[in-house]
Amino acid sequence: MTSRDEILNLFRTCPDPYISGQKISHLLNISRAAVWKQVKVLRESGFEIEAKHSLGYRLLAAPDLLLAVDIENGLNSRLIGQTVVAFTDTDSTNVQARQLAEAGAIEGTVVVADRQSAGRGRLGRRWESPSGVNLYCSILLHPQIPVQQAPQLTFLSAVAVAETLEKVCHLSVEVKWPNDILVNGAKISGLLNEMNAETDQIHFVILGVGVNLNMLEEQFPEAINYPATSVLLETGKPVDRLMFLRTFLRCLDQYYAEFLQEGFTPIRQRWESYCDMINRQVRVDQGSRSLSGTVIGLDPEGALRLQLDNGKVERILAGDVIPVTEKKDQE
Amino acid sequence: MTSRDEILNLFRTCPDPYISGQKISHLLNISRAAVWKQVKVLRESGFEIEAKHSLGYRLLAAPDLLLAVDIENGLNSRLIGQTVVAFTDTDSTNVQARQLAEAGAIEGTVVVADRQSAGRGRLGRRWESPSGVNLYCSILLHPQIPVQQAPQLTFLSAVAVAETLEKVCHLSVEVKWPNDILVNGAKISGLLNEMNAETDQIHFVILGVGVNLNMLEEQFPEAINYPATSVLLETGKPVDRLMFLRTFLRCLDQYYAEFLQEGFTPIRQRWESYCDMINRQVRVDQGSRSLSGTVIGLDPEGALRLQLDNGKVERILAGDVIPVTEKKDQE
Repeated sequence: MTSRDEILNLFRTCPDPYISGQKISHLLNISRAAVWKQVKVLRESGFEIEAKHSLGYRLLAAPDLLLAVDIENGLNSRLIGQTVVAFTDTDSTNVQARQLAEAGAIEGTVVVADRQSAGRGRLGRRWESPSGVNLYCSILLHPQIPVQQAPQLTFLSAVAVAETLEKVCHLSVEVKWPNDILVNGAKISGLLNEMNAETDQIHFVILGVGVNLNMLEEQFPEAINYPATSVLLETGKPVDRLMFLRTFLRCLDQYYAEFLQEGFTPIRQRWESYCDMINRQVRVDQGSRSLSGTVIGLDPEGALRLQLDNGKVERILAGDVIPVTEKKDQE
Repeated sequence: MTSRDEILNLFRTCPDPYISGQKISHLLNISRAAVWKQVKVLRESGFEIEAKHSLGYRLLAAPDLLLAVDIENGLNSRLIGQTVVAFTDTDSTNVQARQLAEAGAIEGTVVVADRQSAGRGRLGRRWESPSGVNLYCSILLHPQIPVQQAPQLTFLSAVAVAETLEKVCHLSVEVKWPNDILVNGAKISGLLNEMNAETDQIHFVILGVGVNLNMLEEQFPEAINYPATSVLLETGKPVDRLMFLRTFLRCLDQYYAEFLQEGFTPIRQRWESYCDMINRQVRVDQGSRSLSGTVIGLDPEGALRLQLDNGKVERILAGDVIPVTEKKDQE
């Protein structure tokens, strides 16, 4: 924890409303001048801190910033989020998480950023990442599972995002194979999971999660080629990013523990319950070829099961799935 | 190609026995002083180069070095080995290949080294890599296949190594699941394949190949915990490393093209034909648990098919396989 984070931590855990500069200096073992300097830095970041003669400092209001200390404090997770690295501005949380992984960071390390300058989506596509409004985070895992099962973790993170959107924002969400979350047919979240492995051992997996929370209409790029939305646009209400992130991390922590214990089945069933494509007629574009059929569900390895018109069931491991019939309830 | 490699190339392709300094200078567009300097460098590396007044230079003998120019020249492969990066000494060819991949190197790029200071085997184990006697190489691939199928490439490289050992060294070899090649029960080659991928797209795969060619008894570490051997120890004859490598790259090139065209089946059948464990009783150690059964073969995704004593067939995706009965022909 940085001195800045430690001071914030004191403000939030101290039972008295005011805490003196002398006490902070003593508890954190830093000089009075250093205390004063950190208070100045906090004020410049948007924290309102009152200073009262003979009483000390008091925190009046905090800006909507994602700070490591606020994310970690009392999270009560088993594994995920024990270590949090928070950036105001970074290239991409996945890139930072990969560097941390290569440097030996522990499993469950979380990287978040207020803004990404080079946010990426699936297949190298750009992911719009304006400052201070959305959630951009990456979670480092070291699962002891075969390489072939690593794609299952995408569905795990999809289910955790979907459930958090439901619980915190009261939205009705659907998942789109392999790694999107939609609200009213528009993309609200995308997942980019990366893996580094050898033949029979995973070195690490990074779950990359982007969720459009408080993004405004004008913040979406004009040239976007799919319908996109945010929680604010859907509900008219801004979301507390910190609360959303903490709920998501707890949910992911719980599902990951369940996954390691019981395998993919519970995750698969939950994902299917969020999937609106089941029993619908779709086209799957795989670059060189295109397939038509009815979606049956996920197979035990995370492939999409597609029943072709001739009755044969095909396992889809890659491609873009496009519905060709309306939803069941609209037929 | 470096000037040094270009000069070697001229020596090898020029129809006249002697080639004048003036002609080299003219053909390579470098100064006479630069020609002289490169000849000096070549001599210091062990090349015997005669210099005769009024005739020029002549290459009398070349040391057993792996030079990019010698590996590439007339290789006649479709994809693999079009670009070769050769090191006298490096940390690990896999590490170098990964850095080249991240910098955008083309598919089929080959990295070789005369010596590795940090050679690694499967699961982070050390791979002994003394100077100038063995083969240490890594091949960069960008296969357009699902992530779940990437482990199949290990069997592709195993089959190519096995066939090269048979063809060039006339050895009777066997493959051991997942990534070893044995001669008379002792390890002669190990494969370390690494992958970088997202959920439904492989960024790159690196096939790492180590083959003990001319390694002497005293060059094996004392603390090695499995029987190991080399071609020289098995046959009594040294192998020409360059010829071995070129034969291997051509073989791999051919099998890779076949794999992309026809899928895993031909590779799987060839691998099984080299596998001595089929129909044998084995124990599989997977860290926390141990299984007993009879090896049936490989499944379509590269998992080992093990028939348990109760008749059930288990797919083995990771673990160490230890035979508990003698080979069939010794029973």
